[in-house]
Amino acid sequence: MDFPGLIAPRFDPGSVWLVGAGPGDPGLLTLHAAYALGHADVVVHDALVTDAILSLAPQARHEMAGKRAGGIRTQQLRINSRLIQLARQGLRVVRLKGGDPFVFGRGGEEALSLAAAGIAFRIVPGVSAGIGGTAAAGIPLTHRQLARSVAFATGHDSSGELADVDWHALSRGSEVLVFYMAQRRIGQIAERLIEAGRGANEPVALISNATCANQDVRISTLAQVGAGVAGIPAGAATLILVGPVIALRPLLADWQQTEPMTVETRGAAASARAKG
Amino acid sequence: MDFPGLIAPRFDPGSVWLVGAGPGDPGLLTLHAAYALGHADVVVHDALVTDAILSLAPQARHEMAGKRAGGIRTQQLRINSRLIQLARQGLRVVRLKGGDPFVFGRGGEEALSLAAAGIAFRIVPGVSAGIGGTAAAGIPLTHRQLARSVAFATGHDSSGELADVDWHALSRGSEVLVFYMAQRRIGQIAERLIEAGRGANEPVALISNATCANQDVRISTLAQVGAGVAGIPAGAATLILVGPVIALRPLLADWQQTEPMTVETRGAAASARAKG
Repeated sequence: MDFPGLIAPRFDPGSVWLVGAGPGDPGLLTLHAAYALGHADVVVHDALVTDAILSLAPQARHEMAGKRAGGIRTQQLRINSRLIQLARQGLRVVRLKGGDPFVFGRGGEEALSLAAAGIAFRIVPGVSAGIGGTAAAGIPLTHRQLARSVAFATGHDSSGELADVDWHALSRGSEVLVFYMAQRRIGQIAERLIEAGRGANEPVALISNATCANQDVRISTLAQVGAGVAGIPAGAATLILVGPVIALRPLLADWQQTEPMTVETRGAAASARAKG
Repeated sequence: MDFPGLIAPRFDPGSVWLVGAGPGDPGLLTLHAAYALGHADVVVHDALVTDAILSLAPQARHEMAGKRAGGIRTQQLRINSRLIQLARQGLRVVRLKGGDPFVFGRGGEEALSLAAAGIAFRIVPGVSAGIGGTAAAGIPLTHRQLARSVAFATGHDSSGELADVDWHALSRGSEVLVFYMAQRRIGQIAERLIEAGRGANEPVALISNATCANQDVRISTLAQVGAGVAGIPAGAATLILVGPVIALRPLLADWQQTEPMTVETRGAAASARAKG
């Protein structure tokens, strides 16, 4: 995609752009991201990137990253090698990741590997799911008097086990806690937070398919959230938010608009015209 | 701005979009943000939003928020009232804020005030400076083995004094700490972090004019950063990052491209054509 009146930086053949796709709504792509998609020769994408966003690179070959079997560590090494290989073929390579590439996206590992191989790269930051997803759920991440600090964490280590973090410090250091991809560990995380002194009745929000038309938001409490995970949509990335700001949501819900940007298809175009 | 093949959600007269402008580079605007700027009747913006970004709303009236004298609290109340007033005039109102509206942007207060007045609004999340600015400085915010958690904080309260936070918990709860708009308090913050057990030689990055052509990055240590603030560009918003991930920066710097998207002027267009 090109933009009238704006001059994009050069996307040279043989270089790699590590691009954050944002949380899901195509309208949350950055101009850099949309430009990169429109000019890529190949797009190496994660499984969670939506078809709507991939359709903005119709001219490019699309490769899903890490499809073959193997542990997560060899998978990341395979992706690193593949990016280098594609760049050395003289292609314009987009490495497309959900959210932001540097917020639990392993973009750092890919960038280090490209730099070590002598390949020019660009980081295109994206709207992180922890920021975009909570906003679409009607929850201000920070708020004077309620939250002066917010922590983003995964809650699990690279093998999927509960992370060896200082739960006491994490729970006391920031009023608002956002856990990425932690749905399988939320029961344990909630226990640790209660042990560390957070209230058992403190609200928890589970946000799945954030910012998409099928966004699913469930409100629970630290004491009960472990049981609530059973109901969340299967296969979705789920974001978990803990903090007093969740109490603001009912005050906003009636007046907040959250409809995403949609990709035009023949049917949708006709419907949009009919609606005026 | 409109985008071929994409259908934007309706921006109705009498509604307000609270829009994150991202950290500075116009290429980090989201598609929603660029669309909103192109269709607004009035843009109420913060002082730090750049002229390049404002130029994407040539059809709109531009108002700088909170220009008149008064404390920060009455200033925020004045902005809330002004947004309601403009919406009630039947205008399409964009409230444009640097970074993301809900990350220390007081978007929550504005949204609550609009909802209480019965005015439809939309939150358009943006790339937060803590994410986009650190990426442009070549610093991965998270990295396996180095940082499993990152905390965003302001470090000061609404009167500008050092915030009454649990410094010990904050410093131990997250390996990476990002402080927004804290340049005047960085000496005190660094002292508290050292008292809490962070190493005096731990690296600190000061990032001013993040993602813009005049971006300024200084690397210091917790022990020395108080003295280093004197050299940062006057009047700039400065982001402060503490954490082990700063050590990765020299490994990336030679191969990372960071040129921003630029707004075309007659001279720039000619220059771009000449360069091919």
